[in-house]
Amino acid sequence: MRQSTLFTKTRKDSPKDEVAKNADLLIRAGFIHKEMAGVYSYLPLGLRVLNKIIGVIRKEMEALSASEVSLTAIQEKASWEKTDRWADDKMDVWFKTELKNGTTLGLAPTHEEPLTALMKNHIRSYRDLPRYVFQFQTKFRNETRAKSGIMRGREFLMKDLYSFSSDTESHDAFYEKVKAAYLRIFDTLGIGDKTYLTRASGGSFSQFSHEFQTLSETGEDTIYVSPDESTAVNFEIIESNEAFEGLTAPKETFVPQKSIEVGNIFSLGTRFSEALELTFLDQTGKPKPVVMGSYGIGPGRVMGTIVEAHSDEKGILWPDSVAPFAVHLIGITGAEVAAEEIYEALTATGVEVLFDDRDVRPGEKFADADLIGIPVRVVVSEKTLAVGGFEIKHRKEDKTEIISKDTLLSRLSV
Amino acid sequence: MRQSTLFTKTRKDSPKDEVAKNADLLIRAGFIHKEMAGVYSYLPLGLRVLNKIIGVIRKEMEALSASEVSLTAIQEKASWEKTDRWADDKMDVWFKTELKNGTTLGLAPTHEEPLTALMKNHIRSYRDLPRYVFQFQTKFRNETRAKSGIMRGREFLMKDLYSFSSDTESHDAFYEKVKAAYLRIFDTLGIGDKTYLTRASGGSFSQFSHEFQTLSETGEDTIYVSPDESTAVNFEIIESNEAFEGLTAPKETFVPQKSIEVGNIFSLGTRFSEALELTFLDQTGKPKPVVMGSYGIGPGRVMGTIVEAHSDEKGILWPDSVAPFAVHLIGITGAEVAAEEIYEALTATGVEVLFDDRDVRPGEKFADADLIGIPVRVVVSEKTLAVGGFEIKHRKEDKTEIISKDTLLSRLSV
Repeated sequence: MRQSTLFTKTRKDSPKDEVAKNADLLIRAGFIHKEMAGVYSYLPLGLRVLNKIIGVIRKEMEALSASEVSLTAIQEKASWEKTDRWADDKMDVWFKTELKNGTTLGLAPTHEEPLTALMKNHIRSYRDLPRYVFQFQTKFRNETRAKSGIMRGREFLMKDLYSFSSDTESHDAFYEKVKAAYLRIFDTLGIGDKTYLTRASGGSFSQFSHEFQTLSETGEDTIYVSPDESTAVNFEIIESNEAFEGLTAPKETFVPQKSIEVGNIFSLGTRFSEALELTFLDQTGKPKPVVMGSYGIGPGRVMGTIVEAHSDEKGILWPDSVAPFAVHLIGITGAEVAAEEIYEALTATGVEVLFDDRDVRPGEKFADADLIGIPVRVVVSEKTLAVGGFEIKHRKEDKTEIISKDTLLSRLSV
Repeated sequence: MRQSTLFTKTRKDSPKDEVAKNADLLIRAGFIHKEMAGVYSYLPLGLRVLNKIIGVIRKEMEALSASEVSLTAIQEKASWEKTDRWADDKMDVWFKTELKNGTTLGLAPTHEEPLTALMKNHIRSYRDLPRYVFQFQTKFRNETRAKSGIMRGREFLMKDLYSFSSDTESHDAFYEKVKAAYLRIFDTLGIGDKTYLTRASGGSFSQFSHEFQTLSETGEDTIYVSPDESTAVNFEIIESNEAFEGLTAPKETFVPQKSIEVGNIFSLGTRFSEALELTFLDQTGKPKPVVMGSYGIGPGRVMGTIVEAHSDEKGILWPDSVAPFAVHLIGITGAEVAAEEIYEALTATGVEVLFDDRDVRPGEKFADADLIGIPVRVVVSEKTLAVGGFEIKHRKEDKTEIISKDTLLSRLSV
């Protein structure tokens, strides 16, 4: 893409109303736009990153044989009254609205109720189980406090997966599969080394739920990490008797750390299926409630977390897997022809290139490239051509190198 | 995809609360689920079709050099008060909600205001123009009447494109390009022959806006089609003096027809840029308001329109461009091995196959295939194998043909 056609401009000044580093950098670099606290629009660069994160997650969901759907934000009260989550004092993040005839509607903060109700049309017998259903869908949550940039949103995209199983054993086996898939997802997204599988409170149907917590000084959560860093416990349950049960290291050796919850997985048991009468006929013809689980990841929050984990004083350092482009090509006045040629050549081999063809000073181009954070920077100027070709530099390294066109093409080709 | 893993079941009975054919067929075939009037969830087959429609539209938007963004549904009042569209009697389809502190928020029924406000950060001089920005985003409209299935939604996906130009001439040139792009889109989507470029009321900044109206007996609109079928006029403006100006055929020869509005394009002039102070410095350094246009297509409404246009008494007949799968492969008991082999072979060459591997009666499989409406049906049974291979049939034809595996592969390969 030619940067001259990218409508967003970077800005030098930090937005005055942002305390979170992720929002500061993403706004200054032109990835997102703040509508109000907790409500952010995605601009072209931000949407590219978001779609890459979605792609990584979707691949793992499909590998779990999950089917993709898209449910609605607008909700009628019926299902939510059956599970006792309609009243504002039961679910404290509802945004409510109303039809012209005065009927109150809700904007879904989560989707257990509508999906459970929907599955009644499609699950009848044990032969229809298990079923795994996921979506990427906008959630609305009326958060009182929304000051962590894109990490705590009032309107945000969520990947939510729901499982429908015939018994606890098959549910547990799938739950373990999701655990492994989530760890792979966070690895691919470049935050695996800082992300811990964390025990959290479980509800009535299991001893624990599990969160995926990424260490970050700006996190809103605190987790206790085991000395060998293999596991962690959420501070909310450390006073409970079971919190450290079965773990080898003693409680005193766990170290408290600030963290961001990037995902969670939850055994729901039959809480929703019983309330909404989602049953199946087992092999003896007897009706039984379906055993459910829910599994969430917020792609926007993950994007914020990646920025918190990968940035320096000059800007963002995107991991390859989610970078908006693979290469930032900077053409300097006097080398226009060579810049155009290498842009065409790289694009033709399938490399995603942001080509800075703008008529601005080199210093501004370099500063923008550091702020935007594309992994590889290639500069072509009369000077680089005179000494043998193109200057290549990785965003996370200081070292620059001059290489020939052929070497450049073979090194960057996908 | 194996149909045994598709969680949706078809149903024989029509939903009692639907009068629209599109919703009746799409619900019975398992493409969508009705949450309430005007609010529909997309199930796996429906989401596949929706994504294909989106893909067709996106390709044409990118060819117009438009950049993709994703704005938010939640809106604060500031920008909308400046354009006088915040009050419920000025914009009569608002859904409003509120924060815990009592602040009223709106759910965007359209996005002129937030995008115009956003562009103030990115447009400063004539060098920053033109800019074209589009999105696929959920709109919320508090419709009193919502009885046309997925054709008039209270919550629905919209592709909205906005143009920002320095003067009327460059705006007009882009407007004509969008017109042509829209006609190509509806051609590709299989409704081109029934879709008319239609004059509609223009507002203060142009004589007309233009709608794209698809003939359909179930349409909510009426258009007057010219005798040579080259153009049409919306019934809303036929009493105006200008409605037929410049058209060759006399008014009396235009024929009224029921139709569905599948798209519209609109010159906004400086209505929004003046109200929201979106100006640019021209070549003499003088500030001028930006000239804008907006261009909409509802992918869900298009999906409903395609179903209205392409169905018979047995079910849907998807055009190739948007079909959820290219081939519906039906395996009959006794031919499991051959069915598996051809499924693997077709999938390996990139053909999108829905493989009916379910343990149900052949009659049920055939009825489901007709209802779901995939363009090509391939049946393999002991009988077809005995007479030379595989039975192939097009959904819109009655003729069946037996062909060999090699012929099948070469005919269906992409």
